[in-house]
Amino acid sequence: MREGMQIESAEIRLEDKVRLLEALSQTGLKYIVAGSFVSPRWTPQMAEVDALLDKFTPVPGVNYSALALNSRGAERAQVHTPPLSPGDGLPRTFVHVCDVFVRRNANRSQADEISSWPDTVQRAVAEGKIEAGIGINAAWGSNWLGEFSLSERMDLLEKQHRLWTAAGIRVAEVVIGDPMGWNMPDAVEEQLLAIRSTWPEITRFHLHLHNQRGTAPISIYAALRTLTEECELILDTTVGGIGGCPYCGNGRATGMMPTEDLVDLLHELGIETGVDLDALIEVVILTEEIIGHPTDTHVARTGPRPRGERLYAMDMPFVETFEQAQHFRVGPSAYAGAPSPWKSVITSPSRDRLGLQQDKAGAS
Amino acid sequence: MREGMQIESAEIRLEDKVRLLEALSQTGLKYIVAGSFVSPRWTPQMAEVDALLDKFTPVPGVNYSALALNSRGAERAQVHTPPLSPGDGLPRTFVHVCDVFVRRNANRSQADEISSWPDTVQRAVAEGKIEAGIGINAAWGSNWLGEFSLSERMDLLEKQHRLWTAAGIRVAEVVIGDPMGWNMPDAVEEQLLAIRSTWPEITRFHLHLHNQRGTAPISIYAALRTLTEECELILDTTVGGIGGCPYCGNGRATGMMPTEDLVDLLHELGIETGVDLDALIEVVILTEEIIGHPTDTHVARTGPRPRGERLYAMDMPFVETFEQAQHFRVGPSAYAGAPSPWKSVITSPSRDRLGLQQDKAGAS
Repeated sequence: MREGMQIESAEIRLEDKVRLLEALSQTGLKYIVAGSFVSPRWTPQMAEVDALLDKFTPVPGVNYSALALNSRGAERAQVHTPPLSPGDGLPRTFVHVCDVFVRRNANRSQADEISSWPDTVQRAVAEGKIEAGIGINAAWGSNWLGEFSLSERMDLLEKQHRLWTAAGIRVAEVVIGDPMGWNMPDAVEEQLLAIRSTWPEITRFHLHLHNQRGTAPISIYAALRTLTEECELILDTTVGGIGGCPYCGNGRATGMMPTEDLVDLLHELGIETGVDLDALIEVVILTEEIIGHPTDTHVARTGPRPRGERLYAMDMPFVETFEQAQHFRVGPSAYAGAPSPWKSVITSPSRDRLGLQQDKAGAS
Repeated sequence: MREGMQIESAEIRLEDKVRLLEALSQTGLKYIVAGSFVSPRWTPQMAEVDALLDKFTPVPGVNYSALALNSRGAERAQVHTPPLSPGDGLPRTFVHVCDVFVRRNANRSQADEISSWPDTVQRAVAEGKIEAGIGINAAWGSNWLGEFSLSERMDLLEKQHRLWTAAGIRVAEVVIGDPMGWNMPDAVEEQLLAIRSTWPEITRFHLHLHNQRGTAPISIYAALRTLTEECELILDTTVGGIGGCPYCGNGRATGMMPTEDLVDLLHELGIETGVDLDALIEVVILTEEIIGHPTDTHVARTGPRPRGERLYAMDMPFVETFEQAQHFRVGPSAYAGAPSPWKSVITSPSRDRLGLQQDKAGAS
């Protein structure tokens, strides 16, 4: 909701946002970023975030959060907690590898970010924290500075790690952001392996990968392959792969991996998600209606790979358009009237062996 | 041109197809499938393929081909050779793992395909061939029968391999098709490794992967990672990722990995392609104009990762829409009039160190 909606039209009605957030809450997804507390002057799409959080019906067990970039935003978030979750309480430091992006996005310099670390660490010590997170943003490259090297990234992580360790606080998590879509699967793998071998005690990884050049799904799969079982991997994605920010130079063409494509990939890999993919696909369709244009979704156009009684009817006529391809969710009416080129009934010994109910019904 | 255009509107004008084929010929791509010789009754999009091949200006060094599914098609192709290339002369056997798909698509059964193998082998022997190719289509699964196992695939490959070997002909190539987008990166890897370990002499692989569920780019990367240096990998892709067939049940939602995204991925991996990505991006834009709807392209929306003088201007204003994101190819006019939220000039020590001409020009 935050990543996706912030770059769509500011004219989208509050009631549609409520509808979308409530539908998303029913899919089984457990972590939803509902919006951001930022200036309505520059991000009018988020002007109604307070009203949205007042109006929608939260689902128990779903963790709702909202982005706050400064203390004013944090105060506004406090007012809405709950339904917003109180947060995990983990103290975190981070820095942008690109100091042009942070200047454009938050009117700060990289040096400003680094100089804020000691305060964060001291506050954590005072609060008796025992674990912390470190992070880098615009990690693999930037539209303003080009690509960054592994040693640049590791250097900025190591400086944070040293501060926390000196304060007696264990680093348990690394967050890596890529707002400008510079991720590459080999570089993601190299980065994760470097962290694992340098600090084996870090087992939680949070990747926020954008998809400007189509590599986010490939890099996400590389991360799934690279991290071993003792690790936890948190992946940010958006319904339909929408999203982006006006500061990064790519706008709506920024994108992420579509959530529904990731859920489908995980299911196919045998990884349980607890997400109802059918319900999630309906949210994609609703999103496209509300934003008024098609998204980058794959799975919501064709449905997941069909099995059992969901296998397609053998005599299905020509399917040519995107609308006709929706038969997987709306039924045969999607392709009503489409031509059938076959002179005789389609038969198949392999299909017969499946003994499907739909085929028996057709034969009777 | 074949895979993409066969599922788009049949109303696309011949002169636009000529324009597209000629533009594609200028990108540095060396293999272009220009169309197919099929029945204009069921594939009216290909009714003008003869006229297209008569009219366009071929570029020397580019290999043009066209699909022919039967002897009538092969005769028509012969008339247009050149500009069509004569083919590589490699005798090939193949079979669909799904016999519903082959029945729907070519009105044959899997048994028909298998029974045609001995003739193909005998003809190759008579012609003194020393190498051959084997292939399976709908390899990983089907919208009509569900998924197929490694042993089902290997069994069908082994039967072909045995025939060729018994005839004294070496198998040098495997073609694997996936018209219904059932590919998964782990299954692709497993399949390629199984072939390599069973028949180490097979070093040429040709993958035709569709993208119904968004996994084709991930599977292609898995294939690039899996195959070692002595192997050759042929990958089919389409401009903008368009394409599909009316028989597979998904129509235009079938898709492939966009050619421009693959070229960009290869360049980023340090693999030379000889393709002019800028020229290819112009072909994507032209394609979208001609077919009348946006494609699945990523790289043509944002441009490749910018470097050197292509790095974005630090004072670039808000970029929100897809049109504004086109600044990478049309220049600052793309975002003319967009708001700038910054009260002071954006500065960055890291950017200064790059010493870009564009920044010097701006400062003078």
